[in-house]
Amino acid sequence: MNFTESHALFRRAAAVIPGGIYGHTTPAATLPGAVPYFAAQGSGCRYRDVDGNEFIDFMGGYGPMVLGYHHPEVEAAADTARRLGAAFNHPTPLLVELAEKLTARIAFADWAVFAKNGGDLTTWSLMVAREVTGCPKVLKIRGAYHGAHAWCTPGHGGLTPEDRAHIHDFPFNDVGALEALFIRHRGAIAGLILTPFHHPAFADSELPSPDFVAAANRLCREHGALLILDDVRCGFRLSIDGSHSVYGYTPDLAIYCKALANGHPISACVGRAAHKAAASRVFLTGSYWNDPAPMAAALATLAIVERDQIPRQLAARGQRFVDGFLALGRKHGIPLVASGPPAMPYVRVADDPSFMRTQQLCAAAIAEGVFLHPHHNWFMSAAHTESDIDDALARLERALLRTG
Amino acid sequence: MNFTESHALFRRAAAVIPGGIYGHTTPAATLPGAVPYFAAQGSGCRYRDVDGNEFIDFMGGYGPMVLGYHHPEVEAAADTARRLGAAFNHPTPLLVELAEKLTARIAFADWAVFAKNGGDLTTWSLMVAREVTGCPKVLKIRGAYHGAHAWCTPGHGGLTPEDRAHIHDFPFNDVGALEALFIRHRGAIAGLILTPFHHPAFADSELPSPDFVAAANRLCREHGALLILDDVRCGFRLSIDGSHSVYGYTPDLAIYCKALANGHPISACVGRAAHKAAASRVFLTGSYWNDPAPMAAALATLAIVERDQIPRQLAARGQRFVDGFLALGRKHGIPLVASGPPAMPYVRVADDPSFMRTQQLCAAAIAEGVFLHPHHNWFMSAAHTESDIDDALARLERALLRTG
Repeated sequence: MNFTESHALFRRAAAVIPGGIYGHTTPAATLPGAVPYFAAQGSGCRYRDVDGNEFIDFMGGYGPMVLGYHHPEVEAAADTARRLGAAFNHPTPLLVELAEKLTARIAFADWAVFAKNGGDLTTWSLMVAREVTGCPKVLKIRGAYHGAHAWCTPGHGGLTPEDRAHIHDFPFNDVGALEALFIRHRGAIAGLILTPFHHPAFADSELPSPDFVAAANRLCREHGALLILDDVRCGFRLSIDGSHSVYGYTPDLAIYCKALANGHPISACVGRAAHKAAASRVFLTGSYWNDPAPMAAALATLAIVERDQIPRQLAARGQRFVDGFLALGRKHGIPLVASGPPAMPYVRVADDPSFMRTQQLCAAAIAEGVFLHPHHNWFMSAAHTESDIDDALARLERALLRTG
Repeated sequence: MNFTESHALFRRAAAVIPGGIYGHTTPAATLPGAVPYFAAQGSGCRYRDVDGNEFIDFMGGYGPMVLGYHHPEVEAAADTARRLGAAFNHPTPLLVELAEKLTARIAFADWAVFAKNGGDLTTWSLMVAREVTGCPKVLKIRGAYHGAHAWCTPGHGGLTPEDRAHIHDFPFNDVGALEALFIRHRGAIAGLILTPFHHPAFADSELPSPDFVAAANRLCREHGALLILDDVRCGFRLSIDGSHSVYGYTPDLAIYCKALANGHPISACVGRAAHKAAASRVFLTGSYWNDPAPMAAALATLAIVERDQIPRQLAARGQRFVDGFLALGRKHGIPLVASGPPAMPYVRVADDPSFMRTQQLCAAAIAEGVFLHPHHNWFMSAAHTESDIDDALARLERALLRTG
């Protein structure tokens, strides 16, 4: 596989962009030299890079493409809205329709607001929790990703000690550590922010234990803290009712983003009537946040997610993919470990603490035209047919033979 | 003018959205009851609301619509990009082309990065300044708007004292106050963030004095602090070379947003080679930030801004509008005060400290089909022809007679 054009573009990029490509799509975070650096065109579950290489994709743009690239119904809805104009002096009726849709769909939700990015609203949700409670402190899972703002960025540059003066973390699923934080900061805790399951980079995914979920819920109620669900990555993939419904609890605030509009830029936060007045006192705005096209895309995406029971499809296709992949590993004597829910699987080579063999396997998969990330969970999309999965598995068998 | 449908939609909105409409487009910030609350369709410098009322628009979506609503060339460029897909696992070549374009256009700029909203990058620019200098403190103009993040939001809800522990403000154009802050925080100052001119809400706009510009520049150099230009609102309106070129200085970092892509969601920060390595250490990302369509829209918008010398057009049309408006005020015995550069004018009734008469005048203008904001600067667009301006002035004469 030839990445000549990707590398040429990267040299141009490095001349005019810090790091060449920044953020989660930087090749430095995946497999420098063994991955495409620039995309050209996508359709369904496949995309081509700038060298004309084609990939069966299991990352979906790191989440957004839940229905696959350039979904015709979603694009048609967005186009219709876009032709009417954008970024008006006022919202359009789509703002109201989308808020009505989300509050009807998510059982606990009485209201909704919208922004562009998950981090816009995870950050805002902390401010709402502080406004509701009058308390400053927020508890979070150690290593959980909630965005690139100073209170939660995985980066190290540009921080001041004050940025995290009130952020305290605990190991996922560790009830004792969580209880200890609630006791230590009693009377000062605004909220606890959780992801539905734990999907750290460079580690297996972990599902929440029933004990942890029960303790998180109980401690928030006892201490008057808000339970905030960062459902940015999982939302509408695991359940059409919000991912908390899968794990048997109810948050006070939940944030959705990636699968909300199949790649159109929008995020949402929903909450309860009891916190609506406080939420209205935390100023929230952005230049393009009333743009109707992403709202039309979100309404179309949610309608398809409901109509076609997308979470059920993703789970079934993901199970087929993971089972097939593990079976190939057994067949060829390369033990593999799978984690995470099947709709968002992650598979690595067993006994590979440095991730070296997993990286080699993913590089070989990419060389065979299957895009897998070596140390970040993957995303199934509704565009993966059984035939696409079988095609991917045939390629992965060749990749396993290469790396075996 | 009938706002029945706007009001009906607002009642629905208020049921499912905190405040009904939040942020800068809330009717509470303009003229509740006298303005449309929801937009339906826009083209050029005119838009219709959901009741079918049409307005000659002087707000341009609070800035983005520098070429007017639904500009055919910009939309065609965005559509072409969008058909190829969005939110890939990698950026597209448009990322590189846009960074090359901005660094070629802005004389001091050696690199560029992109996000979705102005506030994404004003906040990031502070982190870059901190990473460059190892110092925490940032000086800002009192009352300047830089976004809705905790360090700068005009809101009051959800804040902690730590959010602004290192933010210190001074009155615009006050050289003594600025010098005093530099002395008081000597050795701890990361940067000074300025807007090209001061455009506070509920006040006249103020242009920078040459003394102030010289002092800001000198103090940043003397103290090793970065001079950050928040050119979100003014960028590519006052000059195609960045607004600093109008006022005779050169920043270290500059942020563009509103006029960059004529309503498509994108913002940019540019900087110098000396700070590129530090910038690469401040993590920056968002789910949809590689989306090629807004980058295509930005390239198309910038090409038109250059080709048609848009800043010159905006200045000429703005001057015609302001001169005509002031003359009508004189003719009818209602003294008016204009401030700000003609491309971004603001006109109010003189001797009106409560803004009551200015609000009445803007309400009357809206009733006559001219959308003016009573206490926020306005935005000329390239879609305002002389005939549109004369049409607007004829309507404003009727508005003045109504309120006289």
